[in-house]
Formats: sequence, structure tokens, C-alpha cells
Amino acid sequence: MNAEELRAFVATVFEKLSVPSKDAFTTADSLIKADLRGIESHGTSRLPRYVYRVENKLINTSPRIKIVRESPSTMLVDGDNGLGQVVGVWTMDRCIQKAKSTGICMATVKNSNHFGIAAYYSMRALKHNMIGISLTNSQPLVAPTFGKQRTIGTNPISVSVPAGKEKPFVLDMATSIVPLGTISVHAKLKQPINENWAVNKDGAPTTNPEEAEKEGALMPLGGPRITGGHKGYGLSTVVDIVSGVLSGASFAVNVGSPFEHTISNIGHFFAAIDTQAFRPLDEFKRDMDELIRTLKNSPKAAGQNRIYIHGEIEFEMEKDRIEHGIPVHEAFAKDLIDVGKKLGVDTRFLEKKEKK
Amino acid sequence: MNAEELRAFVATVFEKLSVPSKDAFTTADSLIKADLRGIESHGTSRLPRYVYRVENKLINTSPRIKIVRESPSTMLVDGDNGLGQVVGVWTMDRCIQKAKSTGICMATVKNSNHFGIAAYYSMRALKHNMIGISLTNSQPLVAPTFGKQRTIGTNPISVSVPAGKEKPFVLDMATSIVPLGTISVHAKLKQPINENWAVNKDGAPTTNPEEAEKEGALMPLGGPRITGGHKGYGLSTVVDIVSGVLSGASFAVNVGSPFEHTISNIGHFFAAIDTQAFRPLDEFKRDMDELIRTLKNSPKAAGQNRIYIHGEIEFEMEKDRIEHGIPVHEAFAKDLIDVGKKLGVDTRFLEKKEKK
Repeated sequence: MNAEELRAFVATVFEKLSVPSKDAFTTADSLIKADLRGIESHGTSRLPRYVYRVENKLINTSPRIKIVRESPSTMLVDGDNGLGQVVGVWTMDRCIQKAKSTGICMATVKNSNHFGIAAYYSMRALKHNMIGISLTNSQPLVAPTFGKQRTIGTNPISVSVPAGKEKPFVLDMATSIVPLGTISVHAKLKQPINENWAVNKDGAPTTNPEEAEKEGALMPLGGPRITGGHKGYGLSTVVDIVSGVLSGASFAVNVGSPFEHTISNIGHFFAAIDTQAFRPLDEFKRDMDELIRTLKNSPKAAGQNRIYIHGEIEFEMEKDRIEHGIPVHEAFAKDLIDVGKKLGVDTRFLEKKEKK
Repeated sequence: MNAEELRAFVATVFEKLSVPSKDAFTTADSLIKADLRGIESHGTSRLPRYVYRVENKLINTSPRIKIVRESPSTMLVDGDNGLGQVVGVWTMDRCIQKAKSTGICMATVKNSNHFGIAAYYSMRALKHNMIGISLTNSQPLVAPTFGKQRTIGTNPISVSVPAGKEKPFVLDMATSIVPLGTISVHAKLKQPINENWAVNKDGAPTTNPEEAEKEGALMPLGGPRITGGHKGYGLSTVVDIVSGVLSGASFAVNVGSPFEHTISNIGHFFAAIDTQAFRPLDEFKRDMDELIRTLKNSPKAAGQNRIYIHGEIEFEMEKDRIEHGIPVHEAFAKDLIDVGKKLGVDTRFLEKKEKK
């Protein structure tokens, strides 16, 4: 599937739902970016869910996003229940502008929605030679260490850092080991899951994906206590504190799921750090290149021939998919066609693809 | 061992080594705090090592700590090879002062040394109703995912957040699963280690602590790739970037070990976030209490009767050890006596204890 065609299609879908053109493009671009970078769980596969939420007025298509509290290096933003991508880009771009004046900026956001991949925002800092940070809370799916109930989100952490001749460093990680989607795929394929990924309804580690999906909870990064699961639980809590508590959004069990018929009130946290507030740019970039090369050239474990830098696999996939197209699974293509037909958007490019 | 007596003893040891009284107290206080909070690996057990480094002029006892680059919300600090604790407190306290004016402050530090427990600095923000963040790089001990060599540090992350009626949230975690010290203890006791903790010289997971200690490397938080080890590796890299690369300190394989006869040039990162730049304090504290209670009251896994908040175990231990004393192992007490005798510091309180 050609990325540009797919982006135009998704943008048109949002326009048909009364989303202003610029916002429709932003949201579409975030979903396509996820597909291009191989994070399909946060890409166009979610379009039907977005359509449902917008049609049912669970998301506000004309939000009055506003700064509630501000200082030269800080912002509290009220997203007015707008699309997470629209609120996220609005805030991150202002954060970058403020960091141009003062060296750094931190922003927290309340009244927002699922914003797709966290790296979409942190990466916006790169072309300004800034470090970008993007965090968000999310619906409860993870059990705290020694717990068994879905109490806290998979609350991702994304940090993007510019380099010189090397590709930028782009970390984008959930604070659980795997997302719920990975458990669901295993359940569908009837494949056992790794025993560190999730617990069953009693809080015991399980290799049964159905048990985990239906009545269990995800384990935080680190798994059980013996392998440091309390650290993943702690990181998830930090993300909830700065995204949810510091902004006045929902947090922990109260964060709405995009799959439920409720307002989400998700909270985000963004930061932009101008590297030049600390060091001359050429020195910073030279040392980033050296760090990256040191890691990549480090001796490999037996059977391995490559060490990766965060974001590297995704940059390579993006390049390949821009050139050769995004592989959209037949079932997801059908969902997109259904959405397009219902809203009167031309779906011929999707059908052509499907017939191949 | 009475905490105050022990602190006074350690401070006197540093004074005998020409460390100014205030700095001697700060360094002693950090080591005692670690012992009180149950993180003995970063406490007075390290005193002989500090003494060795100061006596051999690997650490500067009269550093001219200075701000190299500054804006209202940022600082780059040159620690002039001072004691890590002295440089750390100097920087964190200025960071807090700057955040009082502008809402937030970020500081990076170069030319510093091992600074003890990271929470010692992040916690200084608490009494100012601020969120404190403290990171540091450290000598290479961890192998990147698919690697086998000690390439990056156990680079800890500490985040402290004030609450209302509840105890503050205090996360203080290495980005490896366990520190090297835990492997050493298992080697000494001839107990196998968890297969996710470390790799052997070929980069394969090992349960043999001696293999791991002598020729292997620690695994990052998450363990192998299948359980998310690339995430721990990514977090460790982020800490190295903002502590080492952003400050111009050493990074990755070049960070000096406190156990080697070299200058360390360690880098730190500190941040202070005034919660009131974002939300009224009473609302923030009320919601922190709610978050903490939600987590603690979440249903327990079978066989568990308590869910902990980060820092909770340490606060309880600190209270107990202030009241009943710090249990100092005989071997470590002997080390302290040796140090005291060599430098002419009264060690009778230690000997009395040892004879018991």
C-alpha cells in the first residue's frame, strides 16, 4: 500500500468526520508513521476505533486547546478532549518554541486522548537539534509488583536525541514488557506466551494467552520481582505522575480506554531540551556519534551479528516501506474499505490492492 | 551501630584527609543515608575505597566547582573532580533554587565522581514540594542487547515526588536488573544466579556467578530480548546521553571505575520541577495520595499481602535503623577500624560494637 495514498485516504476520512484539514492530516500522518515504522498496533489498524469515537462524540473534533498555566519554561495545557495527535503536536511544537528561548521546556496536558506512537512527538525536536521527550498515561492494563489487577497503564517513554553522521537515537518503549496486542495475537494463533509477560487472575505468571487476555494483567518491564519487575512498575508510575497527576488528568484505574464508550481524559508529558543550552552543537553531535559507534561496534554475543541503536530498525523499515509500500493485512484493508464506503471516501486504491 | 556516631566517625575520617568540614559531613551523610535505607553497597562499606582515592589524589578535596554555561532554567556544571556527593549536592541545591524562580531547572555535570545513592539528590527536592530527578553514568558493566562486553553503566534513575498524607514516592533504580555486587555476593556464597541477570564471556545467559563476575557482563533491565532487555539497554543509554554526552563528561566504556587507579570523569544529570508551576499544591498532593492508595489497595497476587510504593521499604528501614542502629557486618566494621586507626580517628565505638 502506497504510504502517501494511504495517508491521503485516512486524512479524507477524518475530514468527512468534520475534523479540520490540518488536524485530519496530522492524525493521518501519525497513524501512517506508525505503519511505516513497523508499529502497526498504533497505525491505520486503529482507524475504525477512531471513527467510532469521533462519530459518538467521545472525541471533540473542534477542540479549543489552551494553555491553563504558563511560565517561560513550563506549560499546563487543556486539550479540550481533542484528538490526541492534534493536542500532542500543538503542545510539543509550542514546547520546542519555548525551549528556543529558554533552553528547555516541560509541558503537561490534561483532557486528551490516545495519541498514537509516542515517538511521533519526541522526534519533532530532532530537526531543531533538541532532545525530545514524550510520555503518556493510558488505560490500566498492568499489575503492580505483588498485585494481580490491571491498575496502571503501559505508559510509554519516548526519548529522541539528534546525532551527527549517525541516525538519531529514538527510544519508544512501553513500560510493560509487551503490549496487550501481543498477547491477543498469541491467543488468536494459540501460541503460548513467555512466562514473564503476564499474570493470570490469581496474579501468578502464566503462559496461557487467553487466561492473560481475559482475566489477567500485563507484567511491568522486568517481569516478576526477582528480575526487577518493581523497576518497570516504578517507571510506569513515574509516567502516570507527570502525565496524569501533575496535569490534573485521569490516572491509574480511572484512565479511559479507547475501546470503551467513555471520555478518556488521558494525560501527556512533553519536554524539549536544546542541546546548545549545555554544549556547542558540533561537540554534542560528535560525542553522540562516538557513543552510537561504541555501542554498535561492541563485541557481539555468540550467534548475533549486529547490535542495534534505538530507532535504527524503524528508520530502515520506514525507508523500505516508503519505497515499496506498507503491507496492510487483508483483514485490516477490509476494515479501511468499510470505513471509506460508509463515509463516501474513494476506496478504489484499497480494493485494487486487496484483489492482488 | 548508632547512625549519628557512625556519621560523625566517617565525617572525621574525611576531615583528616583535608576535606572541608561541610563537605566531609555531606559525604558522610550520603553514605550513612545509604546504610540507613538498606542500600549497603553504596554506604560505609565503600569508605576504604574513598580513602584510597582521596589519598592518591584521584579525587580533588578542594574543588572549584563552577557553572560553565547557564540560563534561567539550565546549568552546565564543572565538578573539578570533587567528591561526587559534594558536586551533587552543590548542583542539586542550585537547581532547586533556580526552579523556585522559573518552575523547572535541568543541570548536567562533568568532571565528577561516584556520588553514592541517586535518591540522596532527588529527595532534596521533596521539602520544597518539588519533583526531584537524579541520574548518573557509571563505569561500564552492562552488555547491550545482542552484545557480550561491558559497554555501558548500570546508570541509575531516581525520581522523588512529594505526596500529602502518604510518604513520598522515591524511585531509585539501576537500569541493570541487579548490581555487580549482587553477583559477587552469590559468587562468595557459591549460589547460582538468576539466568536473566548476566551473560558469560560468549554473551550467553549464565547461572554461574563466577563466570559472570570474572569475564561476563550484567544484563540490562528486562534481561534478554524476548523479555524486553532492549528497553533497559535504551534507558541506560538515555542516562549516559544526558549525564555524559550532554555535559561533556566521559561516557560508555570511557567512564572511570572507582575501583581503578584513574580519574573517573563521571557525568550526572539533575532536574527539579516545581509542582506548583503546573497545579495548586493541595490538588497535586491530594491526587498523589489517591494514586498511592489506589496502587497499595489493589488486589494482591496469591501468597502476597502487600503492594509497595517505591521508597516505602526504605523509609521503614530508615526509621527502624535510626532507632535500633545500623547492622554493620563484622568484616566491614574491621575495615572501618583499620581506616580510623590509620588516620588517627577514635574507633572505640566501633571496637565496642565488634566485641559484642
